[in-house]
Amino acid sequence: MPDRRLRPRRALALSWQLLFGRPLRRSELAKEQITPFEGLPALSLDALTSVAYGPEAIIVVLAVAGVGALHLVFPITLVIIGLLAILVVSYRQVIDAYPGGGGAYAVSRANLGTRVSLIAGAALIVDYTLTVAVSIAAGVGALVSAFPSLSSATVPICLGILALITLANLRGLGDTARAFLLPTFLFIVGIYVVIVVGLIHPLARHAPQPGHSLISSHTVETVSILLLLKAFSAGCSALTGVEAIANGVPLFKEPRAVRAKRTEVLLGVILGTMLLGLSWLAKIWKIGPRSGQTVLSQIIGISLGRHWAYFVISFAITIVLALAANTSFGGLPVLASLLADDQYLPHVFSLRGDRQTFANGIWALAVLSGALLVAVNGVTQRLIPLFAIGVFTGFTFAQAGLVVHWFRQKSAGWRRRAAINALGAATTAVATLIFLITKFTGGAWVVVVAVPAFVVLFMRVRAYYERVRKVLNLGGVPDRPIPHGVFVIVPVVGVSRLTERALSEALSFGGEVLAVTVVAEANENEDPGAEIRRQWDAWNPGVELQVLTTDYASVVHPMVGMIAELCDRRRENVVVLIPVILPDKSRFALLHNHLDFVLSNALRHRDDVVVARVRLSLSTLEEEAAPDKPAATTAKTPSRGN
Amino acid sequence: MPDRRLRPRRALALSWQLLFGRPLRRSELAKEQITPFEGLPALSLDALTSVAYGPEAIIVVLAVAGVGALHLVFPITLVIIGLLAILVVSYRQVIDAYPGGGGAYAVSRANLGTRVSLIAGAALIVDYTLTVAVSIAAGVGALVSAFPSLSSATVPICLGILALITLANLRGLGDTARAFLLPTFLFIVGIYVVIVVGLIHPLARHAPQPGHSLISSHTVETVSILLLLKAFSAGCSALTGVEAIANGVPLFKEPRAVRAKRTEVLLGVILGTMLLGLSWLAKIWKIGPRSGQTVLSQIIGISLGRHWAYFVISFAITIVLALAANTSFGGLPVLASLLADDQYLPHVFSLRGDRQTFANGIWALAVLSGALLVAVNGVTQRLIPLFAIGVFTGFTFAQAGLVVHWFRQKSAGWRRRAAINALGAATTAVATLIFLITKFTGGAWVVVVAVPAFVVLFMRVRAYYERVRKVLNLGGVPDRPIPHGVFVIVPVVGVSRLTERALSEALSFGGEVLAVTVVAEANENEDPGAEIRRQWDAWNPGVELQVLTTDYASVVHPMVGMIAELCDRRRENVVVLIPVILPDKSRFALLHNHLDFVLSNALRHRDDVVVARVRLSLSTLEEEAAPDKPAATTAKTPSRGN
Repeated sequence: MPDRRLRPRRALALSWQLLFGRPLRRSELAKEQITPFEGLPALSLDALTSVAYGPEAIIVVLAVAGVGALHLVFPITLVIIGLLAILVVSYRQVIDAYPGGGGAYAVSRANLGTRVSLIAGAALIVDYTLTVAVSIAAGVGALVSAFPSLSSATVPICLGILALITLANLRGLGDTARAFLLPTFLFIVGIYVVIVVGLIHPLARHAPQPGHSLISSHTVETVSILLLLKAFSAGCSALTGVEAIANGVPLFKEPRAVRAKRTEVLLGVILGTMLLGLSWLAKIWKIGPRSGQTVLSQIIGISLGRHWAYFVISFAITIVLALAANTSFGGLPVLASLLADDQYLPHVFSLRGDRQTFANGIWALAVLSGALLVAVNGVTQRLIPLFAIGVFTGFTFAQAGLVVHWFRQKSAGWRRRAAINALGAATTAVATLIFLITKFTGGAWVVVVAVPAFVVLFMRVRAYYERVRKVLNLGGVPDRPIPHGVFVIVPVVGVSRLTERALSEALSFGGEVLAVTVVAEANENEDPGAEIRRQWDAWNPGVELQVLTTDYASVVHPMVGMIAELCDRRRENVVVLIPVILPDKSRFALLHNHLDFVLSNALRHRDDVVVARVRLSLSTLEEEAAPDKPAATTAKTPSRGN
Repeated sequence: MPDRRLRPRRALALSWQLLFGRPLRRSELAKEQITPFEGLPALSLDALTSVAYGPEAIIVVLAVAGVGALHLVFPITLVIIGLLAILVVSYRQVIDAYPGGGGAYAVSRANLGTRVSLIAGAALIVDYTLTVAVSIAAGVGALVSAFPSLSSATVPICLGILALITLANLRGLGDTARAFLLPTFLFIVGIYVVIVVGLIHPLARHAPQPGHSLISSHTVETVSILLLLKAFSAGCSALTGVEAIANGVPLFKEPRAVRAKRTEVLLGVILGTMLLGLSWLAKIWKIGPRSGQTVLSQIIGISLGRHWAYFVISFAITIVLALAANTSFGGLPVLASLLADDQYLPHVFSLRGDRQTFANGIWALAVLSGALLVAVNGVTQRLIPLFAIGVFTGFTFAQAGLVVHWFRQKSAGWRRRAAINALGAATTAVATLIFLITKFTGGAWVVVVAVPAFVVLFMRVRAYYERVRKVLNLGGVPDRPIPHGVFVIVPVVGVSRLTERALSEALSFGGEVLAVTVVAEANENEDPGAEIRRQWDAWNPGVELQVLTTDYASVVHPMVGMIAELCDRRRENVVVLIPVILPDKSRFALLHNHLDFVLSNALRHRDDVVVARVRLSLSTLEEEAAPDKPAATTAKTPSRGN
């Protein structure tokens, strides 16, 4: 019988499984171990795809000073590449020191204390959320540059891609990570082809461009130190994601640290040369911001012409940018589970879902970044100032933590290592400060507000869990449980088979049972409870019926009052057993069970009453009532009431 | 102790009461009995305020045929006044026949059978909803004509007024109905002043008008029969609300029928003369549609000039139009409660709220009409075609029902009475048909779809309730309840005072008790349940602990599987007693009780398991643990666990 009743729910569960995949055993959780070349698509897409928005961010800032300032994109990029080199060397040392992975939160927790690690954790959460939004918005930006007719659908396309990535992560990416290899390869080769063709092709610079230039003909601002700093800090967004390899060391094949360090160098070289080439082309072609065209799209268009190769590369960029968002989906749920393990976030974040993924963290990230995409209307430019601050705060803490680490360890060559990490910490700290100062009013204040807010959240959650642990005496030995007997109250609305079932159940509890009903006071001088008392006596179920009368409309208030009074008076534990009809279609629940809704809601905050529901399925009862089916052949439930 | 814990909820309840008023006793439900003059503001505002949109509706249609067709507003209004006379006489007879009130639904249920009464009920629901939307939109239209700067805020102002009316009705209008007298008086006197001044003031017609004329200089359409029919049907919206007095006869002082009939005549005379005067002025002044100006506003402006008198009358119109929406709030909730009593709508609609009002019907009407206002963007014009159809369907059924009634009764003068009602029925039926034909593509099809949809809803609800009644054997005598003993399953997550409390409660039920926990299978060959078994044995609570191991992530699936198996195996009734922490602030519930959420959800559709919750309040436990407070002095709850 239950099978038949549960059929619609089975169908639902089945389509759920089609979407998310069947539940996985813990032992099936493939420990995908990757090589340096596989490390690029798995952990470096966030960094590599920065070339799609890094140079653009510089040029947008420089454009304020007119066409004459555009050539500065090249020297600024050189400085950024220098910073990249420092970061790569520094993070190779992070890999040496923390081959177990963990990122800025783990490093600073071990070396810089709880407070700093919480700031690092908060900055990482902000960073991960922004990475998803920036990556997807940039990917869709590239797509819209290639197909301008899509521009009105930017936000829906962004959310669609976010939904797909979320779904893939809820399934658990598993070995699909290797499927990332092809688009990554296409992307890297494509960008190199663009650079090489651009450098050698004599006609390239004369190709016409769609859209109109957004640069003003007259100079709005002179080239000041502040402008250069702004351009530098904007360009630093190209460095975000360099930390991901160090966070993911356990994913590599043994010898892990060696392979991870190799991947870090590989990333540094590829990212550095791509930035170098693209910024040189931008300089010699005097690329400025154009409406509906990203800087990268302009460079590809001039270099290759707007032919099939342009569209193939644009499409590859869209795909890898979207896949880059995936880096965060690997990172944030793990971080949230670590924070939850440390009692800083709700424990739900440390529970694994059916697919062995940290599903709640994935949902949280999807909701946060989706809200952000809608808030900024899918425009990358507005997100980038917010984006780099979280990343660079993480950089700084990780490097600073390492300095402390080397000082404590004093292992071979520690002075050199500490010096490199100190240089990294100092440079990224300066960059962070520049971001904060130059971008504060441009939106960076959001990060300055969000990070402390997260830290306060962490600490309040922790304080609450500590209190619960103490109050519940977790880990201690509690007193022995002592039974007291029960007094069962059954609220009824009339005499029916539902009432019969509820009383059977109540009598099974072995204590005293009292049925309660509420009737409205009649206007005339007649007894309003006479009718139900007559029916009750005719039935004579062996349980007393208390009829409460009320002059008010609510039937719940008198019941709650009586229950409260009984709780005070009786020595036994009071159980309120609410009879509930279980309709075969859940929409029919609207048609009854009001008493259940309002009474259980009114008792929700009482800890001296056990609220229980006895459910009676309409279809089970119908089978029971059918004369051609003897009750004995049905499942256990129906036989109970007889 | 409970007092302290409940304090925030008390504060909430208090502010709720400030908003909605304290709960009322049934005996306090003032039977407000009204005189004919009070009947105008209480039951006739809907009809009287039709002058604000009736003539306008005619002129908008005529304007299509150019300025030359505008004079036809007067003859068309004369026809409508003739129909008004027939309706007034007919409804005086409805009052004679059904002095108990009830409207088209009650009349047709008694005389025309169930099906027809359901159609009448559905038409009335559509009518009531549209009345609210049309009245409020027309009121705000008048306001915006006077203060054009408000025009961008039309929808918010509409919704604000709707919220105020809803709130007033949830409180129960009670004797505040008498407060309607002043604005009603102001409105009627104001319109008469406008008409009289307009007729005698020689300069009136030369006053300048704001806005620009919306009438086309060249004739778009010639004056055809179809156009005249369209204009007539549009103008019939001025007759809506004539039925309200007959529906509300019980509200009048004895002799009820006499007073109600007097009010009906009063309404007919006032409404007729106002329509006559206004249409005459519209004719002689060649009033056409203007941007941002209602026809009534133009007439007032020309007659009195745009001085203080104009603004006072405009403001009075806004107020009475808004109060006119109130007619529906008196009607629909009562109708819904009648339908619910007859099993055609969910029973919630027949429950009275704390203020003795049919609160659910009021909420339903507010939500429906609010959605409608948003959907049509607060523009009256789009609603009027929909509006009149429901009203006139009701008119027709009520009159036709009365014809049957007189034929059955054959009381003195029944032939004359039947003839009058038959004339009313025929005229309104023709008008309804004209609406349907002329306005079908203009939105009337919505009514044609909505009414049968409501009828289907009514019948499906009725069929479901019939089935429940049969299955539950309501009214019959059920078997005697038989106890079976209980088997109590307590899902636990560890050894704590929460577990102790839950086991105490479970043991109180007198049956066998089994604690269950789920642990994840470890990767190495160690026993994953060893730790909790060790703690359990150290505690030795006298209850067996069953440790389920799982290789999957979900801890609920193994528990549900075990519960299902026990349900099949055991003869006793299975009770699942879920321990729940009751935090002092409800937001903290997010931080635990996951097992409660997922387990109770998973068991939601089982009728062979009683799901019970034992709640443990954190603050109660804390007081209990405090060494300076002996447990015996606290309330009963804390003493239970010791």
